Amino acid sequence: MLQVLKSTVAAIGPLDAAAMAEARNRQDRLTKPLGALGRLEALSIQLAGITGRVPLGFPRRAVVVCAADHGVAAQGVSAYPQAVTAQMVLNFLGGGAAINVLARHAGARLVVADLGVATALPAHPELLSRRIGPGTADFTTGPAMSRSQAETAIATGIEIVAGEVRRGLDLVATGEMGIANTTASSALVAVFTGETPETVTGRGTGVTDEVWRHKVDVIRRGLALHAPDPQKPIDVLASVGGFEIGALVGVILGAAAHRVPVVLDGFISGAAGVVAGAIQPLAPHYCIASHRSVEQGHRAALAWLGLEPLLDLNLRLGEGTGAVLAFPIIEASAKLLAEMATFDGAGVSEATDTPPDAAE
Amino acid sequence: MLQVLKSTVAAIGPLDAAAMAEARNRQDRLTKPLGALGRLEALSIQLAGITGRVPLGFPRRAVVVCAADHGVAAQGVSAYPQAVTAQMVLNFLGGGAAINVLARHAGARLVVADLGVATALPAHPELLSRRIGPGTADFTTGPAMSRSQAETAIATGIEIVAGEVRRGLDLVATGEMGIANTTASSALVAVFTGETPETVTGRGTGVTDEVWRHKVDVIRRGLALHAPDPQKPIDVLASVGGFEIGALVGVILGAAAHRVPVVLDGFISGAAGVVAGAIQPLAPHYCIASHRSVEQGHRAALAWLGLEPLLDLNLRLGEGTGAVLAFPIIEASAKLLAEMATFDGAGVSEATDTPPDAAE
Repeated sequence: MLQVLKSTVAAIGPLDAAAMAEARNRQDRLTKPLGALGRLEALSIQLAGITGRVPLGFPRRAVVVCAADHGVAAQGVSAYPQAVTAQMVLNFLGGGAAINVLARHAGARLVVADLGVATALPAHPELLSRRIGPGTADFTTGPAMSRSQAETAIATGIEIVAGEVRRGLDLVATGEMGIANTTASSALVAVFTGETPETVTGRGTGVTDEVWRHKVDVIRRGLALHAPDPQKPIDVLASVGGFEIGALVGVILGAAAHRVPVVLDGFISGAAGVVAGAIQPLAPHYCIASHRSVEQGHRAALAWLGLEPLLDLNLRLGEGTGAVLAFPIIEASAKLLAEMATFDGAGVSEATDTPPDAAE
Repeated sequence: MLQVLKSTVAAIGPLDAAAMAEARNRQDRLTKPLGALGRLEALSIQLAGITGRVPLGFPRRAVVVCAADHGVAAQGVSAYPQAVTAQMVLNFLGGGAAINVLARHAGARLVVADLGVATALPAHPELLSRRIGPGTADFTTGPAMSRSQAETAIATGIEIVAGEVRRGLDLVATGEMGIANTTASSALVAVFTGETPETVTGRGTGVTDEVWRHKVDVIRRGLALHAPDPQKPIDVLASVGGFEIGALVGVILGAAAHRVPVVLDGFISGAAGVVAGAIQPLAPHYCIASHRSVEQGHRAALAWLGLEPLLDLNLRLGEGTGAVLAFPIIEASAKLLAEMATFDGAGVSEATDTPPDAAE
């Protein structure tokens, strides 16, 4: 295993129990009925555990969008031509994609990395060129990539997030672009969760039964060919994964090693989270699930990760869009913990008994 | 009926169909698979219909928090002493409550109005004193307020929102504070939805079966005493409502008349929305449901309003907290519509057939 990968995995420790206890104690003294902030309370405690302090907010924010192509696109599993991957990367660089709008809205830097888009892209000052190859190979006829390429993809993600940490990073989101990458993600999630390809393969909007059955069959053939062993997660990534998915695994592991909360977008990011968790079981503790994708495999990935998403808006766009949409909620949970008055400090009476219905 | 109430109700028209058609058409040309932005697409179309244009964002934001006390608190339906209403208003004015933190976070002005808190409050430059009385009467022994007071409460909300419109207002949220106001809200929602008191009365966290049964019985006795007629919504408000709930009815009607989107917080705001919708059936079209409260009556209120909440975070705090938490998502939906590139503009290929799985 590459040295940087080994040392990053070793650097990931458990959440800070003392900071979590302090946060939990403070939550219970804030001027509100016990538990009235619902899921924002547990979220603030997790953030304290990740960062090691009662966090005051996350002013330095980034979303890392990794793009690559997939050989399995040749099997006709996507309604979009493969050229769209490159076109959308250019759209990211031009500022016109959904992730551009939402990153600006969330005050997050947008970091776009080419891990292996099939069509060559012109050099651009805003594009990190980290190409591992011109797309993966078709996993129905052989491994998507070599073991060495899989390690390089993960190491690249680790290096990208380390660069962002050097620029200053309090909160990071994962995003991706790659035609046919739901097919790779369904294959990965099937391997680690033990679910069948049928269960973890999405229909998307308007997909016919026929296209969906074909997609499931493509995944089933890939899994039959490689018989991937979930105990060897990097080999699984090499067999049926993608370059951009591997890089996101690295972003997640790197963020966890630097104790930076990492916000997972939808299904593909969830699949990367599962691979990261298979490599280092502590990594998911540093992850926040932003939204529940329409893609049905996302539920299995989130259940495996033990994460409950914050938003459920029927998104299925990727790019990191759902993740940055959740940024204001994540920041709000931290600010509530840090800035609210306590009962004693504000002179507010506490509940005489249990607090059933003050306010609502 | 008061003249301002009559003219406000008459000023509320249907959403702008031409602006909605333009927004829908633009959504389908943005560089994303059709429908991939999920509920944010329908939200942006509603916002276009409300404002009459493809909205660019909502820079001038406010949350109106109306506070008042409830005579029915004497029946022991809340775990908190009535004094907490006044204490929490002082906490709002001191900047230490959850709504202060979240309003700052959302860039929203916080407008606090006293509609009738039992304990007299000292004058404060940030407090709108619009007292109708020292709290309502106990609705188990007589009407909560007179018909004239109910009209005044609604007119006061209309006047408050008109003042905010004069200061500049693109987006407004409703919030409240009032010990025992879930009891009044459950009674109101039961009347208009036809649900039983059991179905629309919440247990809150930790409420014992005994307390909950007592609360249901209090509501049942109130409804038996007044036999409120849902065809006469202002009389229903007078029988079992609250001053702050009446003011929120006015905020909703006033916002709709000024074509300003109004973001409903949780259960009490939902009950006010139901009363507003009973007075003017077009009013709910101007409403956005922010979150699904833990209070079980909220589901019935949202179903009656035909609204689906954006967030589901197990909040049960009120004050407008859930509503301002949704502000960034609402603004994001508008910005996506206004700022994203179109397929032709960005040179991105469209789906060859149906768009099942580009990205995710």
